[in-house]
Amino acid sequence: MTENIYDVIVLGGGAGGVPAAVRAAQLGGRVAIIECGNMGGQCMNKGCIPFGHMMVASNILGSLTLGKEMGLDVSGISKDYATLINRQDELIDFMRQGVKGTLIKNKVEIIEGRGKLAGKGKVEVNGKTIAYKSIILATGAKWLKPDFPGADLKEVTNTDYLLNEKKLPKRVLLFGGSPWLIEVAQFLHRFDTEVILATEDKSILSDESKAIRSRLTKALKDQGISILTRSEIVSLNKKKGGLHCALRTKDKEETVVVDRVISLRRGAALTELGLETVGLDGKGDFIPVNERMETPVGGIYAMGDLAAPETRHYSHLASQGGIVAAENAMGKASTFDHRTITRVLFTQPQVACIGLTSKEAKQAGYDVVEGAAPLSMNPFGMIISQNEGLVEVVAEKEYGEVLGMHFIGQGACEMAGQAVLAIQMEATLEELAKATFPHPTLSESVAEAARECLGRPIYLP
Amino acid sequence: MTENIYDVIVLGGGAGGVPAAVRAAQLGGRVAIIECGNMGGQCMNKGCIPFGHMMVASNILGSLTLGKEMGLDVSGISKDYATLINRQDELIDFMRQGVKGTLIKNKVEIIEGRGKLAGKGKVEVNGKTIAYKSIILATGAKWLKPDFPGADLKEVTNTDYLLNEKKLPKRVLLFGGSPWLIEVAQFLHRFDTEVILATEDKSILSDESKAIRSRLTKALKDQGISILTRSEIVSLNKKKGGLHCALRTKDKEETVVVDRVISLRRGAALTELGLETVGLDGKGDFIPVNERMETPVGGIYAMGDLAAPETRHYSHLASQGGIVAAENAMGKASTFDHRTITRVLFTQPQVACIGLTSKEAKQAGYDVVEGAAPLSMNPFGMIISQNEGLVEVVAEKEYGEVLGMHFIGQGACEMAGQAVLAIQMEATLEELAKATFPHPTLSESVAEAARECLGRPIYLP
Repeated sequence: MTENIYDVIVLGGGAGGVPAAVRAAQLGGRVAIIECGNMGGQCMNKGCIPFGHMMVASNILGSLTLGKEMGLDVSGISKDYATLINRQDELIDFMRQGVKGTLIKNKVEIIEGRGKLAGKGKVEVNGKTIAYKSIILATGAKWLKPDFPGADLKEVTNTDYLLNEKKLPKRVLLFGGSPWLIEVAQFLHRFDTEVILATEDKSILSDESKAIRSRLTKALKDQGISILTRSEIVSLNKKKGGLHCALRTKDKEETVVVDRVISLRRGAALTELGLETVGLDGKGDFIPVNERMETPVGGIYAMGDLAAPETRHYSHLASQGGIVAAENAMGKASTFDHRTITRVLFTQPQVACIGLTSKEAKQAGYDVVEGAAPLSMNPFGMIISQNEGLVEVVAEKEYGEVLGMHFIGQGACEMAGQAVLAIQMEATLEELAKATFPHPTLSESVAEAARECLGRPIYLP
Repeated sequence: MTENIYDVIVLGGGAGGVPAAVRAAQLGGRVAIIECGNMGGQCMNKGCIPFGHMMVASNILGSLTLGKEMGLDVSGISKDYATLINRQDELIDFMRQGVKGTLIKNKVEIIEGRGKLAGKGKVEVNGKTIAYKSIILATGAKWLKPDFPGADLKEVTNTDYLLNEKKLPKRVLLFGGSPWLIEVAQFLHRFDTEVILATEDKSILSDESKAIRSRLTKALKDQGISILTRSEIVSLNKKKGGLHCALRTKDKEETVVVDRVISLRRGAALTELGLETVGLDGKGDFIPVNERMETPVGGIYAMGDLAAPETRHYSHLASQGGIVAAENAMGKASTFDHRTITRVLFTQPQVACIGLTSKEAKQAGYDVVEGAAPLSMNPFGMIISQNEGLVEVVAEKEYGEVLGMHFIGQGACEMAGQAVLAIQMEATLEELAKATFPHPTLSESVAEAARECLGRPIYLP
């Protein structure tokens, strides 16, 4: 009965599973994808897409400040959150159809239901057992209950809550270290919600370089967003007037009154997968995989949020992981490129950090050279008042190989593509230094930052 | 008197001259730069910077259309052109100071005056003769009188006119093939001037690919901009009510009444340079140079608008040329990278075309493979309604070497940087196809367009 054996089963139809299924099918495999919820997963339905959409609206509002300096004066602006949500719901519905169309075009069988491993080579779905040669686990992450006092209150919530409302709350505390919280904070602030952004860490984006952290913090504070660091929720109680939250920071303890507390604690969706039936350990925070995205059990691959610590929960990493897993499942030799891992933030200014920070590069044993070009010295940066903008380059000293690039400023997430290619192609500082980017663009600062590394900037004072 | 001999004299302090002077000084040369007008040249004073600034204002206005779809309703907007001009004048003044500071920091001597070649190894300025080992000619381009009837009328003008006004004209005919005219047309239209954009060519951006041309045309027409192609000014007369302009197109002849006609005909500033004193021919349209930016006369270099046909009048090409000339003048071996020549347009949508079109690649003898990814299929493109957006890739078939990339859409001029690096680094389609660009960005379509070239797109229908 070999005709009933799939070459590849993909468990989960999100940002990782869909490209995995398509790629495996392109390589000639008989492929099925199993999804119990909406096709597109967290990213398309409740993550990158709706919040990307919200950040665009937020950025349009932000650009009016620059417009005013340029003589464009708006006498009044109304913000209809319901219209925004309706538009993005329609968009997401359209995208879901598109994903289905892509799967069908590539002859991937779509199975609607909750799949669960049922011993090696078998998966159970909708009461049936189906067989596979390889399986790609792509079930992503799920919300975890925050670990602060009062986390059981119904007013303690996550971003899903915002997607189901037609009106925004008046006062919100955003608590945690997730970069995504920073986006939500700026969005809510622009839509006239009072926000406090609080983290236990020493800074927002605590793993990024000092320049990126401090410039983003300054930009957000200048916009009027309250940021508390090294903070802790001591108590949280529902009282008259709202949630009373006692917050302790290094310097003081204060009580803030808000309507909602938003936390974005997420963890790999390991339970209910049947991992124990194949001998995989589901006790850790995520499933360990090698650079081929193989789990310790042959024929079983995992990637995306399921196979990564929470700081690596980015859709594009899931997508790459999915493609790598699919290629290996179909007999090719493919590896995940850890060098170009990109962390992005769609705030205004945007942040994109690719590859290693200087600290990480030193820890990895490199002899490091660094250089930076502020966008306040870039002609286009001056035009659009990129006072906090910066391009940082981290390289290895002897050959000048680029190891990391960090951007803060308008369009940073698109400029990130240059860093991805530079690092992937093993570009040296000399090569970056002579790249002729069009004028006037912020990208010109990529070459200037490389020249700064080499001790010979052309335009920097 | 060797102490009075400069290693390098740079004639002209614009987008090409300034980096040339700085680079020559960095390499240890005794360097002077001679400029008779404002430091920064056409680009900074009357070109890229002021019009870049105006396009930003224009794009903010344009983004309100998307904002409205997203529930952001602006009840009244006033457009104060005088404020816009004042802001950019201040900005340009600041930039000029910056350029002077950079030159001084690098120990470049600044000579204010009109320099002129006075035989080999000598240049005259302010009545004195100074000696050099090498000279870099960087005097750029100047306005040429248009060649249509009525061109002598004072209402026939160029973009300098717009920079000196506090109010915009009501009705303008923009005539010619310059890409810059397209930017000005959109800007004026957004600032409520009635515009007609007319060209003798078969299309706007007539040298670019059909997809880019047709998509840009559609976008502009949808915005309400009148575009006439294969058109000719038959007559132009000043009458009551304005300038009466008889325009002949393929189909018909019509008379339009406008207040101003703007033409952007420019040519290399060859006269008054004293080229004849060193045996250089100033009769052509520009000074021919080799890939080292050397003129036929030893020790004399030229670049930028002075050494290029009008379709290559881009500041970033002047800057690269200046650096290449300076390095060669100082004894290094440096060449201009023609492969990454980038043509940009800061309209909404932006256009950026890098390297070869498919037609050019075929003419150059390549076996060509092409692929495109519409931004209307890109998740972020859907969010921001990039209906006309596209990424096109042109590659050589056997090895998949990327030869050209063309972008239309938001941020195209920044995304261009990826194409510059890809072509410079000799990236193949396989390499582009696996590049992991962050999600959700338009850059993701770069990888998808490469996969489309390879016959295996992941997301395209």
